[in-house]
Amino acid sequence: MRAAVYQAAGTVTVDDVPDATLTEPTDAVVRVVRACVCGSDLWAYRGVINRPAGSRLGHEFIGVVEEVGAAVTTVRPGDLVVAPFQWSDNTCPACRDGIQTRCDNGGTFGAPGTDGGQGEAVRVPQADGTLIAVPGGLAGIDESLLPSLLALTDVAATGLHGAVLAGVERGSTVAVIGDGAVGLCAVLGARQLLGAERVILMSRHDDRAALGRAFGAADVIAERGEAGIAAILELTGGRGVASVVEAVGTPESWAMAVGMARVGGSIGAVGVPHTTPQLDLFPPFRQHLTISMGIAPVRRYLPDLVGRVLDGSFDPGRVFDLALPLEQVAEGYAAMSDRRSIKTMLAA
Amino acid sequence: MRAAVYQAAGTVTVDDVPDATLTEPTDAVVRVVRACVCGSDLWAYRGVINRPAGSRLGHEFIGVVEEVGAAVTTVRPGDLVVAPFQWSDNTCPACRDGIQTRCDNGGTFGAPGTDGGQGEAVRVPQADGTLIAVPGGLAGIDESLLPSLLALTDVAATGLHGAVLAGVERGSTVAVIGDGAVGLCAVLGARQLLGAERVILMSRHDDRAALGRAFGAADVIAERGEAGIAAILELTGGRGVASVVEAVGTPESWAMAVGMARVGGSIGAVGVPHTTPQLDLFPPFRQHLTISMGIAPVRRYLPDLVGRVLDGSFDPGRVFDLALPLEQVAEGYAAMSDRRSIKTMLAA
Repeated sequence: MRAAVYQAAGTVTVDDVPDATLTEPTDAVVRVVRACVCGSDLWAYRGVINRPAGSRLGHEFIGVVEEVGAAVTTVRPGDLVVAPFQWSDNTCPACRDGIQTRCDNGGTFGAPGTDGGQGEAVRVPQADGTLIAVPGGLAGIDESLLPSLLALTDVAATGLHGAVLAGVERGSTVAVIGDGAVGLCAVLGARQLLGAERVILMSRHDDRAALGRAFGAADVIAERGEAGIAAILELTGGRGVASVVEAVGTPESWAMAVGMARVGGSIGAVGVPHTTPQLDLFPPFRQHLTISMGIAPVRRYLPDLVGRVLDGSFDPGRVFDLALPLEQVAEGYAAMSDRRSIKTMLAA
Repeated sequence: MRAAVYQAAGTVTVDDVPDATLTEPTDAVVRVVRACVCGSDLWAYRGVINRPAGSRLGHEFIGVVEEVGAAVTTVRPGDLVVAPFQWSDNTCPACRDGIQTRCDNGGTFGAPGTDGGQGEAVRVPQADGTLIAVPGGLAGIDESLLPSLLALTDVAATGLHGAVLAGVERGSTVAVIGDGAVGLCAVLGARQLLGAERVILMSRHDDRAALGRAFGAADVIAERGEAGIAAILELTGGRGVASVVEAVGTPESWAMAVGMARVGGSIGAVGVPHTTPQLDLFPPFRQHLTISMGIAPVRRYLPDLVGRVLDGSFDPGRVFDLALPLEQVAEGYAAMSDRRSIKTMLAA
């Protein structure tokens, strides 16, 4: 089969690789219908983190089940399925607590030694605990819903998780730091699903700001750092916002998050702190903040969100502004890295 | 009147000072019945932080109202009152959010330029928003309840707040870092008020460990650092505790807190980070932690806690293991600094 392969920083190819096959009785093999490139894929592409040459790429995909192992009971060949970006057994203590991204038997698609979503097919471990079948299957749903189902595999649920961690509730005032697909989906989740009254997006890119407004942001602030904090304070009578979604993960974004949260406010952080920011605890202590963080347990949200996509009440698929065939995945990486695309969808 | 005065690190005297008087129509003057020495008073006594020579001391006191300003309506002369360690108007936005320790018109007793609790009388600003009258007054309650009422002014409510911030609820497993009066009161609050199933106290002092057990700690761990974390993991099947109360505020105590919290767990931090620890965000991000922090808004808890002391269901006064007359306050500081006393009570 064909699949995207990481060669070096800046170089992604599509190569012939061994077919995806069942290894364990709890596995499924899924033929990919749509996949995409993630902002986090760019960390290695830009050389910020290391990735082994020859490793497979992509952790976001939806597809049709081709084959299941003997122990799999909840999905069957022919099912259209949505996969979270990490597999999980959904039965271990962490999974039962709703933190499937710390499953005792979990892992990430595209990690070295596994199949990636950016390919023709994927071996899915722990299929019962991982995959959600879409009622009606591929033949039973409108093709226009596929982008939104695909978005659920990571960015839509991650943005929503950020808003949940930030304590967003009906009537909240929320600031979102990060105008990538996750930040934009945090706007959408805060507004459409959690009932936030006012969402302020930090963005200095016209296309992203426009989508942020379409997703429900009342205000867009282009300033960063102290100027960005000052702009938030001016919009909120000098007090700051009750909830901040931190969807970047750098020292600069953390400093902004702490500076714009009101007394007793909350920060929900879903931006992986790859650059290991050190947080000076005194300012958030003085401000009585609550800081909740972690890689979004997408699986927790999927059953609910699949239903919302199917009934038309949640449409995060609008984050995709470029669609390419798998063979042109390299252009997808380049377009996202150059910020010519917010998020790029791939069709096998 | 007589009051404790800070002279220099290691030197506290009792001097003649100007009588406490009404300054604003919202003031009350309270004659002190009981006061005490706080662990946080020791920061300056030990020279860790600076304090102006000649400044007054003490932020914990209960007393009888002697005089009120024209605008005061909720307390009257003769009332026995409990004062939180900071005054607050209880009407500003932060107060309405229950964060009275960030009141727009608040302040701390004993801060330079104010009266301290370690004296014969105190001018209380914002009396209506600050003081809680004890039903029955001094004549109507058993004198044995005075220590517990006094403990409410800071340590009992601060310990409880730490447990609240740590998300303690019925059935929780909790670890408490810090075996001073605040940590001990966190044990008591977690067990008696919030219904924790199992509380583990980190303590290496026999007297404090014994009181911790009396307050409901099921286990006491003497090890610190990595060994302390290992001991917690061994007690919890390798997973760690759902809730950690951080009642110290040093880099070492924070590292322990992060290391012993289970996936998806919570840290409630009430230890002022005077030594400004820097928190590496990656470990708590990986562990999906929620960290809530701040100086306890004691006023929020007082109405409920006064009732619990009066009905006998909450007795934090057992933290006092030494009682001295005001004139011997220097010995109180020395005894607490040398860890000969957990907490020292003063009678005017």
